[in-house]
Amino acid sequence: MTARIINRRDLEFVLFELLDTESLTARPRFADHSRETFLAALDTAEAIAAEKFATHTRKADENEPQFDGQRVSMIPEVKEALQAFIDAGFMAAAHDYDLGGMQLPVTMTQACFSLFKGANVSTSGYPFLTIGNANVIRRFGSLAQQEKYLKPLLAGRFFGTMALTEPQAGSSLSDIATRAEPNADGSHSITGNKIFISAGDHDLSENIVHLVLAKIPGGPPGVKGISLFIVPKFRVNDDGTLGERNDVQLAGLIHKMGYRGTTSTMLSFGEKGQCRGELVGEPHQGLSYMFHMMNEARIGVGMGAVMLGYRGYLAALDYARERPQGRHPASKNPQSPQVRIIEHADVRRMLLAQKAYVEGGYALCLTCARLVDEQNSAPDETARREAGLLLDLLTPIAKSWPSQWCLEANSLAIQVHGGYGYTREYPVEQYYRDNRLNPIHEGTHGIQGLDLLGRKVTMQEGAALKLFGREVQKTVQEAGSVPQLQSHALALGAAITEVAVTTRTLADALGRDGDAALANSSVYLEMFGHTVLAWIWLRQAVAVSRGLTFKNAADEDFYRGKLAACRYFFQWELPKTQPQHALLRALEPTCREMRNEWF
Amino acid sequence: MTARIINRRDLEFVLFELLDTESLTARPRFADHSRETFLAALDTAEAIAAEKFATHTRKADENEPQFDGQRVSMIPEVKEALQAFIDAGFMAAAHDYDLGGMQLPVTMTQACFSLFKGANVSTSGYPFLTIGNANVIRRFGSLAQQEKYLKPLLAGRFFGTMALTEPQAGSSLSDIATRAEPNADGSHSITGNKIFISAGDHDLSENIVHLVLAKIPGGPPGVKGISLFIVPKFRVNDDGTLGERNDVQLAGLIHKMGYRGTTSTMLSFGEKGQCRGELVGEPHQGLSYMFHMMNEARIGVGMGAVMLGYRGYLAALDYARERPQGRHPASKNPQSPQVRIIEHADVRRMLLAQKAYVEGGYALCLTCARLVDEQNSAPDETARREAGLLLDLLTPIAKSWPSQWCLEANSLAIQVHGGYGYTREYPVEQYYRDNRLNPIHEGTHGIQGLDLLGRKVTMQEGAALKLFGREVQKTVQEAGSVPQLQSHALALGAAITEVAVTTRTLADALGRDGDAALANSSVYLEMFGHTVLAWIWLRQAVAVSRGLTFKNAADEDFYRGKLAACRYFFQWELPKTQPQHALLRALEPTCREMRNEWF
Repeated sequence: MTARIINRRDLEFVLFELLDTESLTARPRFADHSRETFLAALDTAEAIAAEKFATHTRKADENEPQFDGQRVSMIPEVKEALQAFIDAGFMAAAHDYDLGGMQLPVTMTQACFSLFKGANVSTSGYPFLTIGNANVIRRFGSLAQQEKYLKPLLAGRFFGTMALTEPQAGSSLSDIATRAEPNADGSHSITGNKIFISAGDHDLSENIVHLVLAKIPGGPPGVKGISLFIVPKFRVNDDGTLGERNDVQLAGLIHKMGYRGTTSTMLSFGEKGQCRGELVGEPHQGLSYMFHMMNEARIGVGMGAVMLGYRGYLAALDYARERPQGRHPASKNPQSPQVRIIEHADVRRMLLAQKAYVEGGYALCLTCARLVDEQNSAPDETARREAGLLLDLLTPIAKSWPSQWCLEANSLAIQVHGGYGYTREYPVEQYYRDNRLNPIHEGTHGIQGLDLLGRKVTMQEGAALKLFGREVQKTVQEAGSVPQLQSHALALGAAITEVAVTTRTLADALGRDGDAALANSSVYLEMFGHTVLAWIWLRQAVAVSRGLTFKNAADEDFYRGKLAACRYFFQWELPKTQPQHALLRALEPTCREMRNEWF
Repeated sequence: MTARIINRRDLEFVLFELLDTESLTARPRFADHSRETFLAALDTAEAIAAEKFATHTRKADENEPQFDGQRVSMIPEVKEALQAFIDAGFMAAAHDYDLGGMQLPVTMTQACFSLFKGANVSTSGYPFLTIGNANVIRRFGSLAQQEKYLKPLLAGRFFGTMALTEPQAGSSLSDIATRAEPNADGSHSITGNKIFISAGDHDLSENIVHLVLAKIPGGPPGVKGISLFIVPKFRVNDDGTLGERNDVQLAGLIHKMGYRGTTSTMLSFGEKGQCRGELVGEPHQGLSYMFHMMNEARIGVGMGAVMLGYRGYLAALDYARERPQGRHPASKNPQSPQVRIIEHADVRRMLLAQKAYVEGGYALCLTCARLVDEQNSAPDETARREAGLLLDLLTPIAKSWPSQWCLEANSLAIQVHGGYGYTREYPVEQYYRDNRLNPIHEGTHGIQGLDLLGRKVTMQEGAALKLFGREVQKTVQEAGSVPQLQSHALALGAAITEVAVTTRTLADALGRDGDAALANSSVYLEMFGHTVLAWIWLRQAVAVSRGLTFKNAADEDFYRGKLAACRYFFQWELPKTQPQHALLRALEPTCREMRNEWF
């Protein structure tokens, strides 16, 4: 028996009891779908994930890709797994039928993709980067670009990357130095260096399509002068056949602590002056194009973090149920049999914390995916706009919160295993190493904090925050009518009021002294994240209360567990925000006032 | 230039300004010593650590010890480093002159050892296990055993281990199954299996002396029937020469996430019925002998965790001072030069948190070492007894707090480095992997919580806690007379009152329902730990205030940094205990009431 990737009951609870995903089938785009087609997609994903992805997770970690100066090689299982993924149609799952897609809602594709991530996060990196890349070309590429690049990407013949980061710029995209000189034929000559480009080279596909941020000389300084280019590894002829090698060179592979199966590359563009790129859309709009796709990419990172946490949680749960050790503290008789360690309150604490983090994170990420669907296909224009607004607000949380707390779940999974958890004979240490990437890439924790406090909560005069407040109040109202949830409802109502007060204080300060107001934005991010998760947990508890009313006896254990995890979150986690509010409102100045020479 | 292992100014501040280590030279045992001999010992340690230990940290990680079924091999640098350590006399540094020792106070040996740990924690594992082993034999072994085993251990010819853990028992020592059958000649025949035995096999020394916990048949059940045995790898003849191979077999090496240079072994004793052991002290007293040495061993683990955090902090600090990236949030001009990332408030937050964790942990561990010296050599009997009491109370904190928070420091060091921190081209990812062991071995986090709440704070009718309260009040008084420390003094005074109230609530509950009272003991441990560290930080600030008064201008930056870190701790860290107190006093039942089938 292979280890479980997810609690399938939980997955279906989130999809159908929390998010009512089935209701999407009433929309024209999803009219051919039904609960049955959704479940069939999940079954297919789960089977391929278990049989093709999960089976080489450790092997890929122990045999990372090699570069001999000519080509990159890796274990053959990666390509086999990806072929199964492609053959099952997942590369185009969300796309139109006439592009070979399945027209699945994003909620469903994210649910399916979560299984691949849980099974093998580093092998999953290749298709998910390709899907993100294809989404950009679909949205902003010309018809000719769609023909030349999008179709082979969706068919899995080409893979894609996002080539943003440069050695001298890091998170500061305004400082990228890659140049794109216009040529007479309408193409651009690209020169520059990129770093940390995941999947930047490999032999898994016929071609690699890099989406490259570069500056056209003479454009505005900073981020306003960034344009977006398609730069293929092999040039593509107008008839779709592959032409000669483009001047994109792998300068080297980067060796990481985890996530080892995904190549991380340093790429050199135009060393010989022969790197051709195709402008996507208008000049100087590159960053805004990338940002249009950022929400989905960031939810995807959050989901990856969740799933690593989820795998670790299930492994720790299995271990704790099987491992006999020790006795209850009050039991003095050393000759009594040892109990399973799940009987120890402290082990249950560690399992319950993991459950609260990973199931909460899972529901959060799928809630955001559902907002993408609302934004794309809600019948009502206001609903579409509001979904987009809420999504913008929640995206930094969906990216950062799982990256922090599901990593903590991985640490707890190690701890439940004791010494065994620290060994490479058990899987949990790898999840911990793999997950440590997530607070760094796709916008660091600090960047997410600046995005949330410096942009999202204040944009449109606080419209997104107000909308979120109304959503929370709806949940508070619903929960308030369920006797056993009333205390949680009161706590969440109080918490959202605290958020409003703290945000107003900081927004006022922003006008006076931006540096001071933003100095503690990471704390704001963490406080806001825990409040969002309290909302997510209370929404789950409300959904459970409907199930309990129906007296679905077989599900009762599952529901009791949900309520216990909700209670855990409200008793153990939400109160952590109290000192954070105090610190934020005081514009606590210690870090800002600290000087370089005092360290 | 090799990277710094520690801020030497900080080390000397703790030794001489905080702990007045020089005053120990007034005691007869240390009469030959002076500040100069102490500094000379530190210089020697630092030089060997930098030149012999730090130079193969990464290499040892990438080339872990191999077992070919016959012997264990490892990179030659380990043995060279250990020979330099032995040649400089550090194996016997705390021991009597007539045993070849230096009669250094434990405060000084711990300070010296911290440098080796910071330089290379896994190579340091071999001598520090040997030293712990030697301390047990010195204290409880017979004169013959001291002659046969202690002298070669102190000379570095033999190395030692502590063989406690068994596969089926883990942390539950009452369930160990290794048997010791008395033989006619007074020896015992040992049979059983041990796991996770660090340094359990290697070719670094002529012999390996295992200290093995085993049960003599017919003894009391549980921990009261555990005896302690010396089991050498090679038998030792009465004239000190090595005899034949004892029946101790390496069943296999364990492959770990980090700490890879220290072999972790599964050992099989008496498979052929030929494993001879020598009883240490009286039968059935084995655990109490080991516990006598536990305080020092646990402080040693805490110090290891601190030093991994310290190395990461210094690496992150160097990086942040050199790396240009981005601009201040309020700076809108993308053509202005990028600032060093240390200019960003959030990077300063991460550096200040690391500084607070590692310098706080360092001062805590050396404070505990100083208590060992007080317990051993204070002129006054009451002082010796009280030092022992306080040490018993603080030991679970010295072990667990750095294991938690200096690991967090390592995570922050990665984060400061951004993507680079996640690569194996930079050192910080290894520190993070190495440090993850520390919350597990030498008593897990959960075990430390039970020790603190179930034993230490209640023992002798709360005598240790009362004594600690008086010590804290002394610091509060001193700080209260320094204007800029008054708010911290008030906060610490309030915090210790909260500890008293919470502890009384839990102590009352212990009498009624031990399982309920102890269910949240990990939270108690964390709350208590943060309170202890607030005390440590305020003591440092008081020491600084004396330095500032003397207008030592050259030190002013250093002192300002100490005060900023103290302020950080009081503003950002101590308030985290508030929700913990609320949870503890409510005997919050969620984890205890959670059921296996609900997960």
